[in-house]
Amino acid sequence: MKRKPQLELLKKNYLFVEVAARVEAYRKRHPNKELISLSVGDTTEPLLQTVTDELVRKSQALGTKEGYQGYGLEEGAIDLREKIAASVYKNHFSKEEIFISDGAICDLGRLTAFFGSGSRIAIQDPSYPGYSDAAKLLDAKEIVYLPCHREGHFFPDLRLVKEVDLIFFCSPNNPTGYAATFDELQKLVAFAKKSKALILFDAAYAHFIQGRAPRSIYEIPGSEEVAIEVHSFSKLAGFTGVRLGWTVVPKALKYEGGEPINPDWKRFITTIYNGTSSIVQAGGVAALSDEEGSQKVIKHYMENTKLLKETLEKKGYPVYGGVDAPYLWLDCGGQDSWELFDEFLEKKGLITMPGVGFGKNGAGFIRLTGFGNRTTILKAVERLR
Amino acid sequence: MKRKPQLELLKKNYLFVEVAARVEAYRKRHPNKELISLSVGDTTEPLLQTVTDELVRKSQALGTKEGYQGYGLEEGAIDLREKIAASVYKNHFSKEEIFISDGAICDLGRLTAFFGSGSRIAIQDPSYPGYSDAAKLLDAKEIVYLPCHREGHFFPDLRLVKEVDLIFFCSPNNPTGYAATFDELQKLVAFAKKSKALILFDAAYAHFIQGRAPRSIYEIPGSEEVAIEVHSFSKLAGFTGVRLGWTVVPKALKYEGGEPINPDWKRFITTIYNGTSSIVQAGGVAALSDEEGSQKVIKHYMENTKLLKETLEKKGYPVYGGVDAPYLWLDCGGQDSWELFDEFLEKKGLITMPGVGFGKNGAGFIRLTGFGNRTTILKAVERLR
Repeated sequence: MKRKPQLELLKKNYLFVEVAARVEAYRKRHPNKELISLSVGDTTEPLLQTVTDELVRKSQALGTKEGYQGYGLEEGAIDLREKIAASVYKNHFSKEEIFISDGAICDLGRLTAFFGSGSRIAIQDPSYPGYSDAAKLLDAKEIVYLPCHREGHFFPDLRLVKEVDLIFFCSPNNPTGYAATFDELQKLVAFAKKSKALILFDAAYAHFIQGRAPRSIYEIPGSEEVAIEVHSFSKLAGFTGVRLGWTVVPKALKYEGGEPINPDWKRFITTIYNGTSSIVQAGGVAALSDEEGSQKVIKHYMENTKLLKETLEKKGYPVYGGVDAPYLWLDCGGQDSWELFDEFLEKKGLITMPGVGFGKNGAGFIRLTGFGNRTTILKAVERLR
Repeated sequence: MKRKPQLELLKKNYLFVEVAARVEAYRKRHPNKELISLSVGDTTEPLLQTVTDELVRKSQALGTKEGYQGYGLEEGAIDLREKIAASVYKNHFSKEEIFISDGAICDLGRLTAFFGSGSRIAIQDPSYPGYSDAAKLLDAKEIVYLPCHREGHFFPDLRLVKEVDLIFFCSPNNPTGYAATFDELQKLVAFAKKSKALILFDAAYAHFIQGRAPRSIYEIPGSEEVAIEVHSFSKLAGFTGVRLGWTVVPKALKYEGGEPINPDWKRFITTIYNGTSSIVQAGGVAALSDEEGSQKVIKHYMENTKLLKETLEKKGYPVYGGVDAPYLWLDCGGQDSWELFDEFLEKKGLITMPGVGFGKNGAGFIRLTGFGNRTTILKAVERLR
């Protein structure tokens, strides 16, 4: 077995390793100072009672003769797929178009493995580093970065983009926190149609959208002919550690040659995936059934984000995002990403994420998140003041 | 986006579809006859109480402030990796060499995506059809089938094999039920070393081994320089629907150029996978801690298998396997796989699996499994008599 040559070129997980190293060094110098992390997009609020009740019920059932269940359908339990079709897509899609996964990242990995090998892939810059890393690791032919500047509402200028086969697009975006507007997504769909490209739309943060931005690519007419949507329970229901997501592959979606993509995806998933945990899927049905509970948690994170944003703005920082996603994208005002990272760490005991880790166009920014419990966030606010 | 040309060539999931169609037709003709399935390798016994207790405890904890947990390590919880290292491998490996997954099939998919694309892959014939399907779907350069005949103890004649990069090897084998001996696996390791190939050793059924066959490829000296072992809680603890497995990537394992494979696998997994459900992992620790309970369940399936085997042998069928795995590989005695399948279905109301679905060399065999509850198995035995 030979090593893939691209592994030589792949950068180490430099961002997180370097952040951890600097934090560790700080801790050694200041062993008694409490650090507050505003750096990781990880949920902190407990699961809803309605959800844990169902997780417990299903776990207990598996210990009984009557309730035991072996392999489920690889594409997911029928009740969960029907629930998603009804509650998220108002039955615009049938259960055959919805595939349950163990999370958005995991299905993006599978989608990259299936569609990305040998393909030219467009990726927003800045964006979650996993997209380009996965593309490199899974033999993409070429990666085309789409520069996203504050001047353009962090939406790329598609006129500058050459031909590609696949477009990763995340909205609301991580790290900028921006949700693309209806008009912008309409442009994206038109571009995909023109260039016969497939959109892999990452809607993991869609449930945070407070304004009028589309919560799904499928709000754009004609999008189901060009787009796959990847979604997750991670942020919607605090399932980051529980692991559950879904992917929509519409029946209307076709290859250039006119063949439908849905049966191929089903064939692929039923071959290389063996279904999501039946316990977790039961919890997912419960989460979607408790909209009030989910909304409360989302509101909590968005209020955290608002508190941070207002404080930072009062301190004079230009801050983007934070309205439709719990991510703040802070302009370092001429400073280097790492410089401001160090300043926040050293002077305020706050851990942030240097924007340059998300791509060339993230240089000069840092990312902060509103995930966290209120006490911690208020402490952070105090330190920022 | 263009369709992958190999999708045109890929056969439909013909085996399971055709079995289902014939069963359905029978049911229509005999609506009142009860059919017994001996066809699917799916667990039927409830989870152990010790396991459900832990699943419940972890689910409840996630609903509390103190017990909530977001993202875990992509490569798996430290306590579970340490437990596996200690209880399965007697600490021959460290936790850094063990990667937790959501099941053997899922990790085989990821392994195929990472190592298989562009590679020449050797696969036992007969074997689980997922290996070759995944290899085709994920752009393998060539598939080399290794004929496994009863004359050779269903172990391939490696002298006939040309150069390959990757060898899928499953022992105990599905469908033949045979576990390769120490000598045979020694030959396999020597062959891999000579041809600089990587072995992907599927040990999903290892816990069923009753005789002296190795339960791990790592019982063979030097194997950690050439083999990755994929394992699963599915059969070991009835986790087919719960989803948990692991993969061992030893630090001693190297590419042809001498670079270690372990860091690359970690890099890949931490990019395209986001960890296994924390609830499920807690259940896994409990399962490995209750060896007595697990052994009882395994004994149950193996006794089922023995009952079926003895009955079939009394009827004069040459039956292979069934000693080290709950699979029986029945020689149709000159009949076609589908002929005997039909005969068992029509005359005895038993659903089996036509051997030809597992590869060219499965023609003339059918597979039966000992999974099932005792009452059902005894009914099947009655009908066979």
